[in-house]
Amino acid sequence: MKNMIRYALLIAIPILAFPAAAQADPLPSWKDTAPKKAIVAFVERVTKEGAPDFVPVAERIATFDNDGTLWAEQPMYFFLLFALDRVKELAPQHPEWKDKEPFASLLKGDVKGALAGGEHAILEIVMATHAGNTTEQFEKIMKNWISTAKHPTSKRLYTEMVYQPMLELLDYLRANGFKTFIVSGGGIEFMRPWTEKVYGIPPEQVIGSSIKVKYEMHEGTPVLVRLPELDFFDDKEGKPIAIHQQIGRRPIAAFGNSDGDLQMLQWTTGGGGARFALLVHHTDAKREWAYDRTSSIGRLDKALDEAHAKHWTVVDMKNDWKIIYPFEKR
Amino acid sequence: MKNMIRYALLIAIPILAFPAAAQADPLPSWKDTAPKKAIVAFVERVTKEGAPDFVPVAERIATFDNDGTLWAEQPMYFFLLFALDRVKELAPQHPEWKDKEPFASLLKGDVKGALAGGEHAILEIVMATHAGNTTEQFEKIMKNWISTAKHPTSKRLYTEMVYQPMLELLDYLRANGFKTFIVSGGGIEFMRPWTEKVYGIPPEQVIGSSIKVKYEMHEGTPVLVRLPELDFFDDKEGKPIAIHQQIGRRPIAAFGNSDGDLQMLQWTTGGGGARFALLVHHTDAKREWAYDRTSSIGRLDKALDEAHAKHWTVVDMKNDWKIIYPFEKR
Repeated sequence: MKNMIRYALLIAIPILAFPAAAQADPLPSWKDTAPKKAIVAFVERVTKEGAPDFVPVAERIATFDNDGTLWAEQPMYFFLLFALDRVKELAPQHPEWKDKEPFASLLKGDVKGALAGGEHAILEIVMATHAGNTTEQFEKIMKNWISTAKHPTSKRLYTEMVYQPMLELLDYLRANGFKTFIVSGGGIEFMRPWTEKVYGIPPEQVIGSSIKVKYEMHEGTPVLVRLPELDFFDDKEGKPIAIHQQIGRRPIAAFGNSDGDLQMLQWTTGGGGARFALLVHHTDAKREWAYDRTSSIGRLDKALDEAHAKHWTVVDMKNDWKIIYPFEKR
Repeated sequence: MKNMIRYALLIAIPILAFPAAAQADPLPSWKDTAPKKAIVAFVERVTKEGAPDFVPVAERIATFDNDGTLWAEQPMYFFLLFALDRVKELAPQHPEWKDKEPFASLLKGDVKGALAGGEHAILEIVMATHAGNTTEQFEKIMKNWISTAKHPTSKRLYTEMVYQPMLELLDYLRANGFKTFIVSGGGIEFMRPWTEKVYGIPPEQVIGSSIKVKYEMHEGTPVLVRLPELDFFDDKEGKPIAIHQQIGRRPIAAFGNSDGDLQMLQWTTGGGGARFALLVHHTDAKREWAYDRTSSIGRLDKALDEAHAKHWTVVDMKNDWKIIYPFEKR
């Protein structure tokens, strides 16, 4: 009982004691342009009790892509940069990689050559570097990398390269009763060790690609061993499928930045009642990167056309966001 | 802001206003025998701040099997009874079933003969009756069945055949900051339409077996079509695997009733710190059913041995529960 009171007060006191603070702009890094207005208007529509578009708290599901939507993805997906670091670390145990692509090129520093093999090469790198250990061992490796590795050009921690306006958006939605999920093409075990701290999204609300794991007893202790075999690829059609299998409710709001998110946005807006779809368009070559229809990373082409045709919200990073990264705040 | 205050008050007021009620026995249908004492002692250990076994709210994950743990599973798994009802409904569209097992036996009313084919026959029945429609169509069928179909011997709705002591346990854990999940061998889409109402467990916290679905556009509207192909079988080793892939945290408490739950209990108790594992032992032939080591439904054999060896909590339904079903309350 004491715990229950404490728990309730924990929630109630900050809200009741500081109404003025809560009334301040919940999206201070967003300029007062169309996207911010559309977000606020949508949230007000679905949270106003008795209004025709009111949605009960339990059904306020919002799904977010990660790469290019919540954090940067250039010069290449961060999970791939992690894999490249792992290739170097593991190379001494794999003398055969010297003569085997894509590893041979990678070890010579020729990343472009290594990735010339396309999706197949990427998959091979990911399997070789993500598998072969237990889930607990991998979590340790991941936590160590994410807290020490630096981005190749910004020299910042990867977790510093998250988008401040999107962090505010996550908070704003949660303050309005939304449950926020990540639905990413990246690996679940690559994300879960840090998403709670960085985004406020707990592991059980992180959906992503996965490799198979096997349950084994090691000297009386149960372990899950990671196998070099793809279990689920959470991209394109995979996103609505994973949302169905793992959440079991259709989101009322979805946020992405590339053609890989198109089906998630279609599925979200395909439901009845008020729905919201937003694309982050990377238009800021100076503060971030500018890329869209022809990019090999985060290509935004078909989804951009559909966004225009269906009047989805498109964020022009250069013109709609006051700042990009949290470290720009002072 | 108004919504936030309302939301906080909704949580705070009932707790603050009725402390006496909350201090009443949270498990009134449990006799004061060893299982109840073990549950309460565990919850107090992990919720007492500053104590050595304290577990933060975010990590208070509890997983529950469904069939035989939260509701009955005799004379056969309820999802199979649903499938049998569907076979009869769909038979006019499948003239070939008259000469094809297991359907031919089923349609003649010979359930035993139909199930003589074992897991393969069950799978065939489930595929034929669960697939071929969209997820939305299936949800409607499910909701209709669960709100009208009657159990063959009790003649009650299936949702009335849930265990009152377990409902109290779910509430008690949640009141103490636990997040409760179902991890069942039954199909996710069989459970999700009613688990929130009956158990207070929302769809996104229901893990189970699944069939594959395919994303398609039907005249401009996105649908997920259910395919007659198994996606994941959430039993035995599958349970810790699904827990890892979908929750991403190891539970600190797990509840089951059969050998199909053994690996989930091993995985749960294999973590560090305070852990709790409980088996419901069906010992009450009068009020429910009595079965264990030789039953073809919900066999409890190896898990019972391991529970004794490892001092897990075993509920003797006949002697530890005052009532079984909610309808016994007055």
